[in-house]
Amino acid sequence: MATATEADAMRRAIALAARALGATSPNPVVGCVILDPQGTALGEGWHRRAGGPHAEVEALAAASAAGHDVRGATAVVTLEPCNHTGRTGPCAQALITAGIARVVYAVADPTDDATGGAATLAAAGVDTEGGLLADEAAAGNAAWLTSVLHGRPFVLWKYAATLDGRSAAADGTSRWITSADSRADVHRLRAEADAVVVGSGTLRADDPHLAVRDHEDAVQPLRVVVDTHASVTPGARVLDDAAPTLIAVGEHADTTHLPGVDVVRLPRAGADGGGHGGLDVHALLGELHARGVRSVLLEGGPALAGSFISAGAVDRVVGYLAPALLGAGPAALGDAGIGTIARALRLEVTDVARLGPDLRITAVPTASATAPEEN
Amino acid sequence: MATATEADAMRRAIALAARALGATSPNPVVGCVILDPQGTALGEGWHRRAGGPHAEVEALAAASAAGHDVRGATAVVTLEPCNHTGRTGPCAQALITAGIARVVYAVADPTDDATGGAATLAAAGVDTEGGLLADEAAAGNAAWLTSVLHGRPFVLWKYAATLDGRSAAADGTSRWITSADSRADVHRLRAEADAVVVGSGTLRADDPHLAVRDHEDAVQPLRVVVDTHASVTPGARVLDDAAPTLIAVGEHADTTHLPGVDVVRLPRAGADGGGHGGLDVHALLGELHARGVRSVLLEGGPALAGSFISAGAVDRVVGYLAPALLGAGPAALGDAGIGTIARALRLEVTDVARLGPDLRITAVPTASATAPEEN
Repeated sequence: MATATEADAMRRAIALAARALGATSPNPVVGCVILDPQGTALGEGWHRRAGGPHAEVEALAAASAAGHDVRGATAVVTLEPCNHTGRTGPCAQALITAGIARVVYAVADPTDDATGGAATLAAAGVDTEGGLLADEAAAGNAAWLTSVLHGRPFVLWKYAATLDGRSAAADGTSRWITSADSRADVHRLRAEADAVVVGSGTLRADDPHLAVRDHEDAVQPLRVVVDTHASVTPGARVLDDAAPTLIAVGEHADTTHLPGVDVVRLPRAGADGGGHGGLDVHALLGELHARGVRSVLLEGGPALAGSFISAGAVDRVVGYLAPALLGAGPAALGDAGIGTIARALRLEVTDVARLGPDLRITAVPTASATAPEEN
Repeated sequence: MATATEADAMRRAIALAARALGATSPNPVVGCVILDPQGTALGEGWHRRAGGPHAEVEALAAASAAGHDVRGATAVVTLEPCNHTGRTGPCAQALITAGIARVVYAVADPTDDATGGAATLAAAGVDTEGGLLADEAAAGNAAWLTSVLHGRPFVLWKYAATLDGRSAAADGTSRWITSADSRADVHRLRAEADAVVVGSGTLRADDPHLAVRDHEDAVQPLRVVVDTHASVTPGARVLDDAAPTLIAVGEHADTTHLPGVDVVRLPRAGADGGGHGGLDVHALLGELHARGVRSVLLEGGPALAGSFISAGAVDRVVGYLAPALLGAGPAALGDAGIGTIARALRLEVTDVARLGPDLRITAVPTASATAPEEN
């Protein structure tokens, strides 16, 4: 049984891991804390970026740099230590070599080439225990776990709306429905995502920039425009060099006005692809996955969000609700192929927070939620 | 200065007052606690219904029935004791006669014929102090204070919607968007209101009953249907005898199919009356006020809610948000005469609660909120 001190250390490790959200893909985020037998932390670390040292190696190095002897110590780590040699060596072996006596991890590694770390540790005589705070750690690694299990990136749909569900007024004005606090929080979501996706309607209406501001260490996300007819103009702000940009267009779109722009051609939505005349959502997500994208922040607009919902491809919803009423104007969510109440996409609210005057509601599809009927 | 014990007693008095919400109109709700000089409660009471004893008299009687001598005691009461002889005698005099030495009240009575109670008490040598927990007590008496200050009932607009602001699916189905917990809470709101108002569209779509269930002591609210063209049919559930019902129709509506039904004829909405072709909201509220209604629960639908918002006649908003997405279907709020973001009706969130899976958001128009532009 893990001790209360080890549980505290695991919470710390989960928090450390979260610091690198958006920077480690295609790898998971991982945090690690080394405890001496009395429960005192000797060193800690986290996986900061793909290709860089793993969390366990960072933590061992930190303990060593502080002059500590880690022989006989316990390593508390959010993910089962890896067993394979990728760009860095296997962590299980590094822990054994360092003389670690006990390893407590949260989530088992489900990947074929990394799994087996726990068995390697145990075979070497290390006291090994998995499952401590597994749900909490899995939630922190939702993007990576989703990509491993489903072969596509984790999708967070973010919207901003009034209490009556409007994302803009009748005349199209929307600046600003939500508060500065909410808008700053959206930049945090962008910083934690590998890609930010918008539709061409949003591009035409708002000419958004989509890069991350005010997060100095953030890796800029890939900016993705779903633009079936290649309507983006060369002067669009999203095409500047603040972050990489990908324009997803239909197979026959004319892109001659976009020389030098990274363009991918995708099939139109079919019966099971959602999109209602737009691009096939699963094809888009497959393309992004192939490019190493493990988490997508879907920023809208309503039609694109509807196509993702219709395709069953939204894993988390974050709604910024402004305490305001409009009574007219576009809805935050457009047609998602849901025609009757029994087919509503049911969610579970996992968090409610106040951001200045606004509410931020986080929800996930319930276990019983299924993709809406095809149409 | 009031003591901490007196403040505790005032909180108790405010809670006692709230027990009679929906039963005292056109009177306020009032609660009272009698404390001996050591701070022990000798008796408590609240105004239970119009025409019945006032809170102070109830509390004095309770103390007497328990065998306590109230001479030299302190009366803690949520509203300045009345000074006039209505259906019951003036409470200020009753407190003086009983030998009460000190009176602590929360909110001053703003009405012409009742005010002066504090002066009468002070002139009789009673130590009198006002303002203790005044904001909290005023919030509990919002309906009555609104009616006194504005000459119209307090209006609470209640809606139920998905996270994307839909009150029904595309095919009109809406049972059930929200949970049983939320629907039970709506019955509490009805029990606390003097009148429940719906539009004819809601009547046609849902044939609602609108009476209070599962609140045995509740006074049934007046059921009001805003029905410009007198489209209600004699078999509508709202016309049964579970509660009184008023049908508000236009001046030229044919009501020959509604013999024996209480019908009021009202002017159509003008430029400043809201309503977009419906009835004049202020005329409706004036009629209800004249009938002794001090609090209105506005239950919809979207068009009627829009006309109330447009008329600047919503004092509180309670939204039951179900964690579900539809992407299509009628919005919870219809045209409110707001065409651009700068004219949005801005609110302040005063409470967020979880009701089963749902969220209940309570909000009030901000001090700077003005009625939307006329159109």
